[in-house]
Parts: sequence; C-alpha cells; structure tokens
Amino acid sequence: MTRTYRLLVSCPDSTGIVATVSDFIARHGGWIVEANHHSDPVTGRFYMRNEIKAESLPFSAEEFKKHFTPIAEKLSLDWRINDSGIPPRVALLASKEAHCLSDLLYRWRSGDLKMEIPCVISNHEDLRSYVEWHGIPYHCVPVDKNDKAPAFEKMTSLLEEHSVDTVVLARYMQILPPQLCELYASRVINIHHSFLPSFVGAKPYHQAYERGVKLVGATCHYVTEILDAGPIIEQDVIRVGHHHLPEDMVRLGKDVEKSVLARGLRYHIEDRVIVDGSKTIILG
Amino acid sequence: MTRTYRLLVSCPDSTGIVATVSDFIARHGGWIVEANHHSDPVTGRFYMRNEIKAESLPFSAEEFKKHFTPIAEKLSLDWRINDSGIPPRVALLASKEAHCLSDLLYRWRSGDLKMEIPCVISNHEDLRSYVEWHGIPYHCVPVDKNDKAPAFEKMTSLLEEHSVDTVVLARYMQILPPQLCELYASRVINIHHSFLPSFVGAKPYHQAYERGVKLVGATCHYVTEILDAGPIIEQDVIRVGHHHLPEDMVRLGKDVEKSVLARGLRYHIEDRVIVDGSKTIILG
Amino acid sequence: MTRTYRLLVSCPDSTGIVATVSDFIARHGGWIVEANHHSDPVTGRFYMRNEIKAESLPFSAEEFKKHFTPIAEKLSLDWRINDSGIPPRVALLASKEAHCLSDLLYRWRSGDLKMEIPCVISNHEDLRSYVEWHGIPYHCVPVDKNDKAPAFEKMTSLLEEHSVDTVVLARYMQILPPQLCELYASRVINIHHSFLPSFVGAKPYHQAYERGVKLVGATCHYVTEILDAGPIIEQDVIRVGHHHLPEDMVRLGKDVEKSVLARGLRYHIEDRVIVDGSKTIILG
Amino acid sequence: MTRTYRLLVSCPDSTGIVATVSDFIARHGGWIVEANHHSDPVTGRFYMRNEIKAESLPFSAEEFKKHFTPIAEKLSLDWRINDSGIPPRVALLASKEAHCLSDLLYRWRSGDLKMEIPCVISNHEDLRSYVEWHGIPYHCVPVDKNDKAPAFEKMTSLLEEHSVDTVVLARYMQILPPQLCELYASRVINIHHSFLPSFVGAKPYHQAYERGVKLVGATCHYVTEILDAGPIIEQDVIRVGHHHLPEDMVRLGKDVEKSVLARGLRYHIEDRVIVDGSKTIILG
Repeated sequence: MTRTYRLLVSCPDSTGIVATVSDFIARHGGWIVEANHHSDPVTGRFYMRNEIKAESLPFSAEEFKKHFTPIAEKLSLDWRINDSGIPPRVALLASKEAHCLSDLLYRWRSGDLKMEIPCVISNHEDLRSYVEWHGIPYHCVPVDKNDKAPAFEKMTSLLEEHSVDTVVLARYMQILPPQLCELYASRVINIHHSFLPSFVGAKPYHQAYERGVKLVGATCHYVTEILDAGPIIEQDVIRVGHHHLPEDMVRLGKDVEKSVLARGLRYHIEDRVIVDGSKTIILG
Repeated sequence: MTRTYRLLVSCPDSTGIVATVSDFIARHGGWIVEANHHSDPVTGRFYMRNEIKAESLPFSAEEFKKHFTPIAEKLSLDWRINDSGIPPRVALLASKEAHCLSDLLYRWRSGDLKMEIPCVISNHEDLRSYVEWHGIPYHCVPVDKNDKAPAFEKMTSLLEEHSVDTVVLARYMQILPPQLCELYASRVINIHHSFLPSFVGAKPYHQAYERGVKLVGATCHYVTEILDAGPIIEQDVIRVGHHHLPEDMVRLGKDVEKSVLARGLRYHIEDRVIVDGSKTIILG
Repeated sequence: MTRTYRLLVSCPDSTGIVATVSDFIARHGGWIVEANHHSDPVTGRFYMRNEIKAESLPFSAEEFKKHFTPIAEKLSLDWRINDSGIPPRVALLASKEAHCLSDLLYRWRSGDLKMEIPCVISNHEDLRSYVEWHGIPYHCVPVDKNDKAPAFEKMTSLLEEHSVDTVVLARYMQILPPQLCELYASRVINIHHSFLPSFVGAKPYHQAYERGVKLVGATCHYVTEILDAGPIIEQDVIRVGHHHLPEDMVRLGKDVEKSVLARGLRYHIEDRVIVDGSKTIILG
Repeated sequence: MTRTYRLLVSCPDSTGIVATVSDFIARHGGWIVEANHHSDPVTGRFYMRNEIKAESLPFSAEEFKKHFTPIAEKLSLDWRINDSGIPPRVALLASKEAHCLSDLLYRWRSGDLKMEIPCVISNHEDLRSYVEWHGIPYHCVPVDKNDKAPAFEKMTSLLEEHSVDTVVLARYMQILPPQLCELYASRVINIHHSFLPSFVGAKPYHQAYERGVKLVGATCHYVTEILDAGPIIEQDVIRVGHHHLPEDMVRLGKDVEKSVLARGLRYHIEDRVIVDGSKTIILG
C-alpha cells in the first residue's frame, strides 16, 4: 500500500476553492491518487477529500499543516490531514456476542482493516481467551446496573492509557454516559441491529417481527447522547418472511450487522467521513 | 397458462391436516402443481395453499366448495378457493403521478398481470388520455378538501357499478375514509413511498433526507383505518447517499415504488396472501 | 433544472491537471456543481468530469471550446463539452416486446430522462399505435432475413434524417451490421438479457435455466462489431430458484432489463460515460 | 432447537404422493414443523421435504426407514431421512487464506451452523495455531505439484479416519482428483470466487476486471470431475466500478465468498438440497 496523506476540507461553497487547493498541492509536486468533491446546494457547503502520495510531497503531514494554514484561513476551511502510515488506534467494546468482534479481529489480523487494536474491553469474561489468542489485551469491566459510573470511569482511564482514537461498540449492549460520548465525539461507532430510524431501542428484531416487515437491517452510526439518533455512516438490509421467527431474524441480522459495521468502520479509518450536523458525508 | 384452482386454508395447527386435505384432492384426481405450507409456532396456526389443475378435477370451483365444506368444518378451516380462469377485477386509483399507473397498465396489456381493469379513478384529469388509449373507462372524481364525503360516496358507487374486487392506490395521495377501508377490507392495496414503519405520513423522502439514511424504500400494504399501519405485503429499498437531494430520492424511489407495488399486487392476484392480524403470510 | 455545461476530460495522468483545469474554470467565474475524478494506476490515465452552471460562465459552450483549446492542447487532453440545455436526440429501436420501450417512453414523457425521441424504428407494426399516441413518428422497417442490407440502409437514412445522436436497442433483437456500429461508435446502446459475459447470444434465460444459476441478470452495453462484447455500462441481477422455468426467468428478467437499460441510458445522456478500450468509466 | 427428522423424497410426479406420505406421517402422530414441495413440469419429477418433530413419532429414524420402505417402493421414491440430533461431520480444507475458514469456525463455535468439525486439512501450516485454538485437529498435507497422488491418498485416509460426511473447500485452491470427487459425490462443497459460469478457472477477479463487469460474485457448488461445472447451491454478487482494481475486487469478493459459502453449507447441513443432474433443488 502506498503511504498517503488524506486532506479533508469543508467550507462555504464558492468558486475557486478546488483551484486554490489543487494549485497548492500541484505547486509542491503532490500526486493526487484519489479526489472526491461534494457541493451541498441546501446547506451551501462544499466538501473535498484529496488522497496524496506521501512521497510526492517534500514535507511531512505536520509540515503540510504549517504551509497549508494560511490558505485554509483565507478560504475559511474546516480541515484535517491524516497520514495513512499512522494507523488509528481502535478499541473494541463487546459484551458476550462475538459475531462483530470475530469479524473485526479477522479483518485486523489479515490486514484488511488498517488499524491498531490496543485493547478489547468487555463487561463479561466470555471472550477473553479468543481475544488474547490474538495477543491483544482484554479488560473485563463489569457494569453494576445500580451504579454504572465507576465502570465508565474505569473504561475512560483504560481508553486514555491505551491512547485510543476511536471506540467501536461491537454489540456492547450498554449505553455510554453523555460525558464519554462528548469526549469521543464523532469517534464512537455503534452498530444498531435495525434499519434506523425504525425500531429504536431494545429488541429491534422482536419489534420488526411484530410489525411484519419484509426486510430487516442494521445501522452503523456515530454515538451521540440521544439513543440511536447519531449520524448514520452505513446501513443495509436482508429479506425476511413470515416463516422467520424473531430468533431467525437475530441469526440473519448478525450477517448484516457485521458487514455494515466493517464497512462503516472502513470509511472512518480511511478518513472518508465528514460529520455534518445529524448526517454524514462519505467521500469515496 | 394452465387454468387452476387455488385453495387457501388457515386453521389451528394439528396433525393430519395435510393428509386429510391432500387425500380429498387425490381422491378426486386433483393434480397439484404447486403447494405451500406454513406452521406458525407462535400463534399455533397452520396455513396452506394448493394450486390444482382445473381440468384434473371432475367439478367446478363452486362444486368443489360443496364437496369440501364437510371436511373444512371438521378441521375448523378458514378457507377460500379461486378459479384462475376468472381474473380479479382491479380498479386503479391515481392522482397526477403516472409511474405506478403506467407500469401496471403495461403489465396488464402485456398479460404479465392476469387481471381485469374495469376502470381508473382519479381526482384529476391529467391521466385521462393515456388511460383511455388503453380502452379503459376513466372517471375523474375531484375531492373537495373541505367536504370529502361526496367524492368517496361517488367513488363507492363507481366501484360497485364496475363490480370491483380489489382497489389499488397507485399513488392516489388521498386518505380513504374508514367505511371504504372496511367495505374492501384486505382488498385495498396501497404503495407507500418509504420503508415502513420509518417515515409514516407525508413527504417521507424529505423525512429520509433529514435523517440522513443510506437506503430509501417503498412498502406495499393493505389499507386499514390507521394510516400506513396495515399489513405489509412487500417492501424493497435502494441505496442513496449524501449527494442525493430529496428530489433525487423521489426520482430513485419511483423505481422501487412501481416494482414493489407490482410484486405485491401479483401476490394478491395469484391468491398468495393470507392476512393474519397485522401481518401477512405470502405463500409461494 | 439548472442548465449546465459538462466538461469531460481524459489524459495521461500527471500533477497539476486538476489545478490547471479548475483554475481556468475559476478565472471565468465558473460555478462547479459536481466534479468527479478518476486516476487509473494500471493505464496511467486520468479522467475528470466537471458540471458547471451555464449562467456562471461569460460564454456559451461553443465559446468555451475556443478558450479552452490551448489548455487542452498543452495537457494533451481528450475532451468534450456538452450543454445540458441541448438534450440528445435518441432513436429507440424495438421489435415486438414493449417492456423496455414503454418504460423509456414513460421516463421521456414524465421528464425523468432529459432527451428528445425523434423517432421509433421497429421491424414490426405491433407498437405503432402506442408510440404514435406519444406523438412520436414510428417507422416500420421490416428486415428480410435473406437480404438484410436494404433494411439497414433504410434505417441509416432514417437516423440521418432525424439527426439522431444516440441509438437505443430496446430489445430490438436484430444484429446491426458493422458499418452501422462504426458510424455510431459508442452511441449505440443495447440491453442484453443476461449477466454478461455469461450466456452470450440467443436465449440467455434458457441457457441460465440449463446451468441452474441462482441469479439472472441484464447488461447494458455499447454495441461493437463483436456480438455482446462491447463496453459494459451497467448490470444488475435478480434472484431465481429451482421453481422458475425459463418463461418465469423471462418475466422476472424483464424488470431487470428495463431498469438496467434506463440507468445505463441515464449515464450516457448525462455525459457520465467515458469509453476506455473495452471498458467504461462512469463518472458520478 | 427441537430435534427433528428430515424426510427428503424425489419421484416421478403423479397424484396422491403427498396424500400417501402425509397420511403415513399423520397415522403415526408425526408433527410436521416444515414442509416444502416442488413439481418440475419439465422433468416430470416431484420433490418433497418434511421436517417432523422427533418426539412426536413413536420410533427412531432407523425404525422410520423400516416402516416407510414399503410405501417408498410402491411410489418409486428416491428418499432419505436424517436425524437433526446427529449433526454431520464436516471437514474443512483450506490453504493460506482464512476469510472463509474463520467465518465457518465462528459459525461452528457459536452454534450458528449445527455441525461437527472433526478436522481441518491444509496444504500449508499457516492456519494451524488458529484452528488448534478451537480444539480442532489440524493436518498439514503438502501437495507436491509434480506428484499430487500421495497427498490425496493421505487426505482420503484422513477423511476416512475422521468419519467425514461432508468436505468443504474453504478456498483450498487445489483441484481434487476424480476418484475423490466420486467417493464424496454431492458431499464436496466448493466456493468459487466468481459468478459462474462467468470466469471459470484461475484468477476470476482479474478476468472480471479485464472484462469491465459492474458486479462480481461468488458461487457455492458441489464439486464434480469437471472444473467449476458442478451443481450450483448458492450465488451472490456485489457491485464494483471502474475505480476497483483486481486487488479491490479480491477484497470485496471475500465478503461475498464467505457469506455465500455459509449459506450454501447451511442448506446442505439442514438437508435442504436435492441434486438433480447438473442442478440443485433447495427446499426451504
């Protein structure tokens, strides 16, 4: 894999933005391997992602920032740049169910998802041996349902100790407290086992069964304080019928959950997502 | 197409139902071309559809009823039998938008959907010429939004005059009054332009846009008194993204709407649907 | 719909192309409403599509060409610019089957596809009345299977008389002669009723049935001299099973054919397709 | 899970088959939890699968055979009965790639696929530690490309020692010799990384890339002596575009491969597949 810098930009739309930014890149010899633009006529904002070969530029991502800042200020850009050579540190949170966790660990160990996994945190011991086979530290942090605060304090410390960038709720089944959502705003990714906004909350497959829907789905979204209402990154569905009981939907749904979570996480890791209020822009 | 009788049965589940019913059919030489069964372990009910070559039986559908009644009573069957040689009379209701209407008229004139269309009813004149080209009577029944009752009385009369079996709301955009829903219970089919139960009511694509979903869909369902809450017959979705405005979703959604409505109507016309409370069983 | 110019560019990849082109557009005040780029690391070519608001530029598409030519020459660009205000003139060729034709005519009359249809040409009379209801000239050009040349000469004349830009084979069922393929290179669009390259040639659904596949599909492609081997624009599939006979596959396939053809034609009409040897780049 | 007997039947179609078989089941108090029928009008054969609660019958699957044999002979049935309480013994064959193997092992250890895995056989050592963590014996049987016979003899012995019912080629990458195909006829399941019959043989994603297809897929099929030509059990596809290189297709394809293989294997394990010449009937 070629090492690249990923430059993400969002700003009020006007003429000349692409010209100015691409001129800056070209002047320094930057070779763009992938570019994606989006103009939103409703909000009047413009979004751009450029993926530039690292070796084609005469400076590091840090130095890029210094040189680019004056331009960014002139154009009123919200922007960030990331170096693909420094993979994000992603903590996985799980409960007892392993379908999403197993799938993500496979994608990590096979190099399919370019990330580091500094630790797995669970409120149960069930998955310890499997995780530890991978050489990844496993922290069991039980949650006392009458006093959840200590568990989330402990978890916050662990995330800090492990210098975690992104938290993935791989069917963690616990609601994170608001301060943790804020601390990792747009960096906590959840997989909800329904096609949101249908069937918010608990037991969505049972709700789907009761309503008699012909498709069930899963939704990968950023976690915010409001349950199951954060910006949606990815969704998919699978066909069901009258012969599927809730437990069949649970089984079929697992396949959708794991693939939707993996796709959503990939967009995040590859710096393709810009959060825009209650929605996401996926550039790529 | 071979002419067939379609026998639909629903009853409390127990041993011997299939044996008894198939013995009755076999004793009279009935050749089953398609059979579908379903046992629901939650409700404890059993559902069965048999499609029998008409010419293999020594009697008509009417006579079948006479001979079968004693068996049906012994087994406490809810049942019906329909003759594929007598196509259902389906009235299409439309407003100004023609995507569903055009698609259904094509399927009718090409023989793809085996039905008669005794009339099209609309609250506007826009589609008259197109419908009349097909040789189908077109009735324009404007709806006064301050006094809707006369329009629906007129419509009810028209449906009766035309001996209508089934009413299809092909994007009709008006809410039918409860008494009409009741009169044609499980015989009024609507296409809703969202993946229900998401986005009930008006402007679902705009609601979908606001929520930032990654798939939009359509739902074909039987109409009941409660808006958009009737038993779902068929659903499907299509992928959308941040670059789709509400009007793009409207355009993309039309393709899903017309195919979902056509599939749902096919199940209904081919006697494959059993309504079971708030849900449907689709046998086939 | 805002009137736009669509600038399509393809050239050897190097740094500075986007900067130079977007600088040209920005210098003249051009407002880019949509931009798509693609770098192909295998062929080393770069592809770009810019959609620019017509009213934001001080010149017409013709004048744009004059001003842009020096830049294009310097960068060795293959390029074209089209004005969305001048819709393409698309001739539809059909035989007896109307599913694709009806669908395209609906999309035309509802404004869903922005094109003109100067004429429909068929080797049969069957669809005359339907087409003429739309106010579109219908030419019946029978093809003598022992001497096809006169028919194709007649057809070529008709296409010229009607100033046709693009020819759509909407299940036309005849093989066009090489000289016609050449005359309208990358401008004749066919819908093949299989998921190419499976089941080239005649009766693809019967071939699919024999092989026992679990999905059947359709392929929209540009026509070249080699049967069913031209650059693919769009494809899709639908699930089938052991209970589907070839005639069922034909029926189900029609729905895929018409939607795949409509999507492929849309890409073409919106100037999103660049033919690159035996393949297509779809920008958007 | 309720323990069930699965009775599969195939025979020349005629009247009275369902009546006779279901009468037999009903007379012994058999509670049918799922029934599926199929009449093939082309071959004139009838297929039936009945899943019967084991505890509702007064005898074992073995005794069922004894009692049912006279009926089966009278009706010229091909038939088999399996006890869901005796899970099949499935050997997994793999090479170096772990996506299918990991997925199947997860489905096994989570109880999602009801099977035993007596051993994993590979021509490489790479996956030993992962497999052995599961407590499953791992046999490395290298294949000498100049003399493959000894490896396949060794493998045949291993399959016999482990009393293997079904062999799954989870991306094994070696062609099995004809005698092994015959020995396990309709019991060796392969996952081919293309939408067959497109792209038979090696490097199908590269072939797909060359042809410029817009969808790539995977095919789960029974292995026969003729490469990639055995009866297809399941297939699926995923959308690709001009921006996907062969290596991207490989990555995307892995997700399809593993889910198609898992679905195909499930049908096999649940006794839902009847092989009918070059095709399969999937009952359920």
